[in-house]
Amino acid sequence: MGKAAVLGAGYMGSAITFPLADNGVKVNLWGTWLDDDILGACKYGQHPKLKKQLPESVSLYNSDRLGDAVKDADIIIIAVTSEGFFSVFNKLLDSIEKEYPIFSFTKGFITHAEKVRRISAGAADIYQQKLPGLNLFWASAGGPVKAVELSNKVPTATVFGINSPEIKGLIEYFPTDYYMISTCNDVKGVELTSAFKNIYAIALGIYDGLYQATEDRIYHNFKALIFNQAIQEMALLVEKAGGKRKTVFDLAGIGDLYVTSSSGRNRRFGEYIGRNVKPEKAYKIMLDDHETAEGYSTLGLGMTFTKQLGEDLIKDLPLLDMLYRIIFLHNNIKDEVTRFIRLYGQMR
Amino acid sequence: MGKAAVLGAGYMGSAITFPLADNGVKVNLWGTWLDDDILGACKYGQHPKLKKQLPESVSLYNSDRLGDAVKDADIIIIAVTSEGFFSVFNKLLDSIEKEYPIFSFTKGFITHAEKVRRISAGAADIYQQKLPGLNLFWASAGGPVKAVELSNKVPTATVFGINSPEIKGLIEYFPTDYYMISTCNDVKGVELTSAFKNIYAIALGIYDGLYQATEDRIYHNFKALIFNQAIQEMALLVEKAGGKRKTVFDLAGIGDLYVTSSSGRNRRFGEYIGRNVKPEKAYKIMLDDHETAEGYSTLGLGMTFTKQLGEDLIKDLPLLDMLYRIIFLHNNIKDEVTRFIRLYGQMR
Repeated sequence: MGKAAVLGAGYMGSAITFPLADNGVKVNLWGTWLDDDILGACKYGQHPKLKKQLPESVSLYNSDRLGDAVKDADIIIIAVTSEGFFSVFNKLLDSIEKEYPIFSFTKGFITHAEKVRRISAGAADIYQQKLPGLNLFWASAGGPVKAVELSNKVPTATVFGINSPEIKGLIEYFPTDYYMISTCNDVKGVELTSAFKNIYAIALGIYDGLYQATEDRIYHNFKALIFNQAIQEMALLVEKAGGKRKTVFDLAGIGDLYVTSSSGRNRRFGEYIGRNVKPEKAYKIMLDDHETAEGYSTLGLGMTFTKQLGEDLIKDLPLLDMLYRIIFLHNNIKDEVTRFIRLYGQMR
Repeated sequence: MGKAAVLGAGYMGSAITFPLADNGVKVNLWGTWLDDDILGACKYGQHPKLKKQLPESVSLYNSDRLGDAVKDADIIIIAVTSEGFFSVFNKLLDSIEKEYPIFSFTKGFITHAEKVRRISAGAADIYQQKLPGLNLFWASAGGPVKAVELSNKVPTATVFGINSPEIKGLIEYFPTDYYMISTCNDVKGVELTSAFKNIYAIALGIYDGLYQATEDRIYHNFKALIFNQAIQEMALLVEKAGGKRKTVFDLAGIGDLYVTSSSGRNRRFGEYIGRNVKPEKAYKIMLDDHETAEGYSTLGLGMTFTKQLGEDLIKDLPLLDMLYRIIFLHNNIKDEVTRFIRLYGQMR
């Protein structure tokens, strides 16, 4: 096996080093300028987020050594936040002069050329500008993967959407007996589903927060309705954006929404809102607790992306509309839930 | 609105009287020979399973008065267990001489003419024998509906698979602001998904029981893998049986498995097994607690049904195979989980 450079030493970038190391891949883990403290802690013991030591074969590279980290790599894995993607990707392109296959674990949208874009679409634009004539071999990861669990070697399935058969062989770097990889050629579908599921997970959280706070009754029927509606809306969004519905109806959609709505930061953000905490305040409380609810900014960008697909599309997406109206327009939650149920009933 | 006869006064038969009554439908609720005590309790107060009074417009009919209960009905709703379906349906056909549209809420399989059949397929055979020349207008209900929650008027979505456009108008009897009805023409898909989801819900229970008992760690990734795999296997089963995959990828599959695996009897049955209680004993403990884990017998019948579809089909259904090997072959749970993970990994 060869060598991988992993960019981003947060949860996911660090967790992916475990299956890579188990496969005998040498790993250079590069931390962004926000990750220097993490790397510092790793040098003296445990990764502070994963709460465990990284594999011995992982070499650590501080933020000023990106060029060294990627120089000999056969594959570059990007696992920074969507907010950090652009600056890291630009810095990367300034450090390389040949083609490197890029596997992206970043989820969300980016704003580029005054539009909200899928990450790989924005990346392709810059790539062509900076490295004209070179091919961008790209894979986007999706599916139900909590990083801590992956580092605990809990059985985990994931899907890589790859843009080119040339890089299919590199998939071999990843699978272990606990990390099972599927591939498809629907980069758009994997990327969009991974981004939108962080938005829709908020909805499940809102209902739990709302009903826990106000009513002492079970409401699994309603949660199942919401869960299913989230899947249907993601399938429509992906289809309208040129991806494949079946990507949503598999690990990237069903699997990932299941895990993201069962636990996690976006779900927790939704629970605060359901308990009538203002979105800005909920986001702040979590930040103070060193947790970023990525679904919050993704909802804002996702709504713009949706409008770019078609001004009227939102009419067929009452759950997304509800989230936006609650979180960005600050409408009354109960009114919006009632409105959603009415719109949902009318769509039958 | 007209009149509906509901056969079966258990959870679902009684719960469906709430939306019907709210729509002004007169309801005759007939109890089977097992339901006489339930009806007795209802006459003096609350329904003992739903823990509330039935709507005032509901008339109660004891088991000896099936003919009277259905005589003036515009629609007959069957909501007995799959075990009780045949005797009730035979008794019904002996009581009627004209066409009645039949809406079935019974979920599972029946054994008929030495084969395991879908309920509507077995029903159609008997119907043709007993009422030759008459049409069987049929709808099968699916989707995420816990009966108690429906009677609590929690927002609930359901799907009716209907075999004939003639009965589409009768759907009007059902929808309320809390009970939202979709329709499709895929009776097979709705029926099979409703049956198999009770089987697959056991798997989620098994993992919770297993890991709760033996390991102090989170494993959402694995549960999401299982949940998604259950959906994929149901889609394959439905397709092989001549139904539509898209039925599984909607309320009947995604929605109903979500609710059934979040809580409920089949899930609870699985938890016992995960904690190493023998299946027969787990079933017995629950029976003593007046709960039937329908998924247990449905698994046995479902496996036969699967083999009827193709002897080799089970190779593509490692999760179903695992359940059968644990519950009917009494294999070691951990060995079977390991085997499933290996087979799953090989399928990628």
